[in-house]
Amino acid sequence: MTQMLALLLASAAVPAAPAHPLPVAATTTQAPSPLFAAEVERAKRDVDASIRAGVNVPVPKDPGGGLTHEQHKRNYRTIFEGGQLYRLTGEARYRDHVRALLLAYADLYPKLGPHPAASNQVPGRLFWQSLNDSVFLVNAVQGYAEIRDALPAADRQRIDDQVIRPMARFLSDGSPEVINRIHNHATWAAAGVGLSGYLLGDRDLVDKALLGLDKSGKAGFLRQLDLLFSPDGYYAEGPYYQRYALQPFVVFAAAIAANDPDRKIFDYRDGIVLKAIRTAIDVTHDGYFLPINDAMPDKSLRTEELYHAVAIGYGATKDPTFLSIANWQGRTVLTPAGQAMAADLAVGKAKPWPFGSRLLSDGPEGKNGALVLLRTKADPKGPLLVAKNSVQGMGHGHFDRLGWLYYDETGAVVTDYGAARFLNVEAKRGGRYLPENDSWASATIAHNTLVVDEQSQFAGNWKTGEKFGTRQIAASLDGPTRYSIGAIDSAYKDVRIRRALLLISVDGLSNPLALDILHGTGSGRHVYDLPLHFSGHIIDSDIMFDRELAERRVLGKANGYQHLWVDGEGTKAGKARLTWMQGSRFYSYHMAPPAGTRFFVAESGANDPDFNLRREPVLIQRVDGAAAATFVSLLEPHGAYDASAETVVASSARVTALEHRREKDIDLVLITLVDGRRIAIAVADDAAADATHSLTIDGRTLAWNGPVGRLDIAKTGAKK
Amino acid sequence: MTQMLALLLASAAVPAAPAHPLPVAATTTQAPSPLFAAEVERAKRDVDASIRAGVNVPVPKDPGGGLTHEQHKRNYRTIFEGGQLYRLTGEARYRDHVRALLLAYADLYPKLGPHPAASNQVPGRLFWQSLNDSVFLVNAVQGYAEIRDALPAADRQRIDDQVIRPMARFLSDGSPEVINRIHNHATWAAAGVGLSGYLLGDRDLVDKALLGLDKSGKAGFLRQLDLLFSPDGYYAEGPYYQRYALQPFVVFAAAIAANDPDRKIFDYRDGIVLKAIRTAIDVTHDGYFLPINDAMPDKSLRTEELYHAVAIGYGATKDPTFLSIANWQGRTVLTPAGQAMAADLAVGKAKPWPFGSRLLSDGPEGKNGALVLLRTKADPKGPLLVAKNSVQGMGHGHFDRLGWLYYDETGAVVTDYGAARFLNVEAKRGGRYLPENDSWASATIAHNTLVVDEQSQFAGNWKTGEKFGTRQIAASLDGPTRYSIGAIDSAYKDVRIRRALLLISVDGLSNPLALDILHGTGSGRHVYDLPLHFSGHIIDSDIMFDRELAERRVLGKANGYQHLWVDGEGTKAGKARLTWMQGSRFYSYHMAPPAGTRFFVAESGANDPDFNLRREPVLIQRVDGAAAATFVSLLEPHGAYDASAETVVASSARVTALEHRREKDIDLVLITLVDGRRIAIAVADDAAADATHSLTIDGRTLAWNGPVGRLDIAKTGAKK
Repeated sequence: MTQMLALLLASAAVPAAPAHPLPVAATTTQAPSPLFAAEVERAKRDVDASIRAGVNVPVPKDPGGGLTHEQHKRNYRTIFEGGQLYRLTGEARYRDHVRALLLAYADLYPKLGPHPAASNQVPGRLFWQSLNDSVFLVNAVQGYAEIRDALPAADRQRIDDQVIRPMARFLSDGSPEVINRIHNHATWAAAGVGLSGYLLGDRDLVDKALLGLDKSGKAGFLRQLDLLFSPDGYYAEGPYYQRYALQPFVVFAAAIAANDPDRKIFDYRDGIVLKAIRTAIDVTHDGYFLPINDAMPDKSLRTEELYHAVAIGYGATKDPTFLSIANWQGRTVLTPAGQAMAADLAVGKAKPWPFGSRLLSDGPEGKNGALVLLRTKADPKGPLLVAKNSVQGMGHGHFDRLGWLYYDETGAVVTDYGAARFLNVEAKRGGRYLPENDSWASATIAHNTLVVDEQSQFAGNWKTGEKFGTRQIAASLDGPTRYSIGAIDSAYKDVRIRRALLLISVDGLSNPLALDILHGTGSGRHVYDLPLHFSGHIIDSDIMFDRELAERRVLGKANGYQHLWVDGEGTKAGKARLTWMQGSRFYSYHMAPPAGTRFFVAESGANDPDFNLRREPVLIQRVDGAAAATFVSLLEPHGAYDASAETVVASSARVTALEHRREKDIDLVLITLVDGRRIAIAVADDAAADATHSLTIDGRTLAWNGPVGRLDIAKTGAKK
Repeated sequence: MTQMLALLLASAAVPAAPAHPLPVAATTTQAPSPLFAAEVERAKRDVDASIRAGVNVPVPKDPGGGLTHEQHKRNYRTIFEGGQLYRLTGEARYRDHVRALLLAYADLYPKLGPHPAASNQVPGRLFWQSLNDSVFLVNAVQGYAEIRDALPAADRQRIDDQVIRPMARFLSDGSPEVINRIHNHATWAAAGVGLSGYLLGDRDLVDKALLGLDKSGKAGFLRQLDLLFSPDGYYAEGPYYQRYALQPFVVFAAAIAANDPDRKIFDYRDGIVLKAIRTAIDVTHDGYFLPINDAMPDKSLRTEELYHAVAIGYGATKDPTFLSIANWQGRTVLTPAGQAMAADLAVGKAKPWPFGSRLLSDGPEGKNGALVLLRTKADPKGPLLVAKNSVQGMGHGHFDRLGWLYYDETGAVVTDYGAARFLNVEAKRGGRYLPENDSWASATIAHNTLVVDEQSQFAGNWKTGEKFGTRQIAASLDGPTRYSIGAIDSAYKDVRIRRALLLISVDGLSNPLALDILHGTGSGRHVYDLPLHFSGHIIDSDIMFDRELAERRVLGKANGYQHLWVDGEGTKAGKARLTWMQGSRFYSYHMAPPAGTRFFVAESGANDPDFNLRREPVLIQRVDGAAAATFVSLLEPHGAYDASAETVVASSARVTALEHRREKDIDLVLITLVDGRRIAIAVADDAAADATHSLTIDGRTLAWNGPVGRLDIAKTGAKK
């Protein structure tokens, strides 16, 4: 085995480690681990089945989910797994099957032109989009590397020259419009090209992968590391694509660390690769990625990308908290990195992942906003308030600046629709994004943020949105009153929006309250809509709704409004409330809206000719014909329903009043609980950390520094 | 401890066991078991918290879910658990707290009249319905029995005379309209009264409980055992109430076995109590009770009733398959029966419960129909076809004779709405049944059975329905072609309905096919609607639907139709198909309907002013203006979606054609698979087991005995 081959897929070495091969014996004599043993068994089942089925390398024809698409996906997995199994077992049948597959590709690949099912993406050769071709190459190189030395020279030459090199050429010089972008598709291409370069000993391919086709460093892997992640390791397109993009970043980084140790790739940009891995884990709830932007809500840490990332992250750091994630995953990768990590997990080295609040700055310099995660416990299922004050996130970004989400033990409570897509389901437009992804899922009304005049932010043009960040004004990640304050002036012409989202712990309440103070400030007359998308069954409301009981209209004509069935429209003087139930818990949403606010209960699913949309409820607060509007809302989780024991506690809200006043340049919110206690929350316009403020509330003085002050007031007349 | 007290709650003795007390020492020296230890810890936490909170016995005021309701529920649990803990630990604080609670009830109870929140149920004293008072007494007696001997005579006297005896009197002589019924409310009353009788040594109470108030045997516990269960142990009201009713049956039976061993109660009526326990376990899928009739779908074997039933069933039989149910439950009861069972579970005696197909005859003689369960594996989550050819089930029965359900690994696939109710949620009418339970949930259109002229069966009058059974014509519970054939002539005036439901295993298909052949035969002109309520997201259909995209109407005016929003109406010549996706699987519903059939896709939730209904999809096949109609439909589960690995297989159906012909007095159905194979299923009108039939299909002869024949035909022109 050549040094280069051995290094290619070595366990991610710490950057300072000397460049020597990791011999196979060193990994196979590690402590046996049930996790890794199960991977080996699983791979044997897969590959042995593939051996029995024989080589099947069809001429490409079908789009995502179709037969040839799925077969080529199976093939690259078989090549990857077969190669690893040959390394682990030395059994000839694995080598021979990988060889046979690759030789079949050597027959097929040079004859291929653009894929016949190409759509609006850059076409691949094996797949309808070149992205999948990159994924093929990243996997195939890793499998091939493990058998290459064991092949006759003629076979090696044929596979090198008719599969690996032409694929790498197609994805580099042959596709400048892909590899020279700053985009996850380019990272996959760079990883495929770079891994091929290391394997073939082709420095030209490696340098193009690292530095762009012209090797200037204006494109390529290093530039992608500079621009695609914020300094906190947050990926501009959001958690779903952070997950997706991670695999080529970590796999290629591990190969660079092994082959070009002097680059100290894990130290690059203050350790950005490791930050990206950690942040990917942090942007989950109960192991599932927050479905911000184009995202499937069923994606969790239990995915191939994260098996690689956790194994490589652990290899590079030996941080035992990675092991608890591997334990939750219940899976790892077949590589030496996976093997070494599983061995440490098996001997009990795991420690819990420290889930906590985080302010993840966005933009390459971290100056274009942030994704803020407010958590009150380290429990992965615990309360989580997400404030999306981020950049646009390119073509997969949604028009949801200043939006928010809320999760807790019952799952998603204040929800994001995610993407309108049935991944790989052929009957749903070949598994691609559906028309409703533009018309509904990315529209502002489909999110929990202010809509002005029934338009989406940036007039629904993501390229416009791409030019503007969001302002992350202030945040506090700890203590009983966590918060994030953000603002944006560019989303709508002439309307400034500022929002404070607070997560308030209260003695005696088992769950925190989520307070929302939102100002829309413009001139002239506008329609201001504040939607709340929630999950659960409506229990009751004190709003008098005129219900659409026997005939149902849609709310509007365009920008997502055409997809909303109206269930009812109503009004309420003073504070209003809607209560719903999800799982074992009740949620009351209290509102102190501007005078004249109308309320709509609606549901997604109208104007959906192909049944592409899920049907989910939304409550909308609407102010019509005002220059400015302030919405103050409070989400209160309460009570418990136990179906097994048939018990219910606290099915009614503990919050009895919610008041808002402007005092000087301060928003003062008073929350009254059923036991008479009150909590005063004051948010100053001046968010400077050193600014001092004071207010008088019922004769008591509240004085504080920074934007947010709080005063808990005992029951009036109470002795203590 | 007196003999009687000790016996009252003894582990269910085998009937022949001699009547001697089971000393406490004998149970506490059993092998320690984690399951029982956890119960003791849980009970200690509950009771210790109650001790700290102090005695709280409020004047009854609230309906279900309200404060006083929940407090009295907590109290009877505390009395039960406190008594058991005193037996197990001998610690005085448990005795003292139970005593204090019971003395507080001695102060309160004699002063109470009918409950102020009484509704249309018979009012209790402590609760809005007397049923809950019965449950209180059953629990309180069991707790009190454990401390009674340890109390000063004066306390004992007071509790006997001011709590136990007056409660027992109220529930016997004081409520003849309850205890003399043949109904689960009467069983709870009988159990409370009977347990009180054993405890107080009051033979009069015992005999009234066993034989009715006049002691003639025309009412009371034994008569309930005769009439409420079919010979197969199926409870007339369905699985949900079978579960609910079970606790008083098993607890009282165990007490009778201990105190009146000569009655051999576990042998009574060929072992009906044990049959009832076994059948209760069988009428579940994945541990959840089939939500037939008025039922909450979240009820599982993890309920107090089944903890008692499994412990007592195991005690009476030592059948180790009960232990696997206890293991799934993860809970047991604090009684000696629970302790003994948990000890055997801890030493590894459990064997899997033999879930299989069952024909559960219905009606006291087993002659009024059946609930048929067709299963293809013993896996509790495996495929399950349910044919509901049962009796009405009294006031909680739905109008769904000849209806069907289908479950598999993804959960409920062909669904039953269950009850329209939010159990114990005060804002939803105090947790009682909602108006939509009558207007929607019990209506025929809300079920998977034929609706004639938009009416419910028996004109929606359950008392009429109560007079008529269903005919269970034939069934086959094993082999590759399992089936049930049922008929009813009384559900609609002048229309006879006959339905064959078959579960067909096919080589090479991982899941069975469910075939449905339904004949509605009348005279004149009728509208025949066949609904299919399903769970999942619509993928596609070959029916051309006119969609209600921007305005939505309701399907009808009454009988449940007013609750259906129309999504679309369409037609299709020849075979029609609708495909949906649930979890990781696809389902195609193939239809060979009569010519001129129109198809509706609709959704529940219209005319629902209080948001009481869940919104669930339904497909309806409609024949309008015919004397008779035959609907032939086939449910095909297929394919797999793996969100984690991003793979999809077989998202399109394997069934390509479905044809139906009448040949003589036989229904012949031909199912063609994508690989060219065909399966011919023939169902003869003459269902006699010894009848012989034959048909010629493409030159081949199919000859069979009994109602159903099958011929698998290889691909035409295939060599083999």
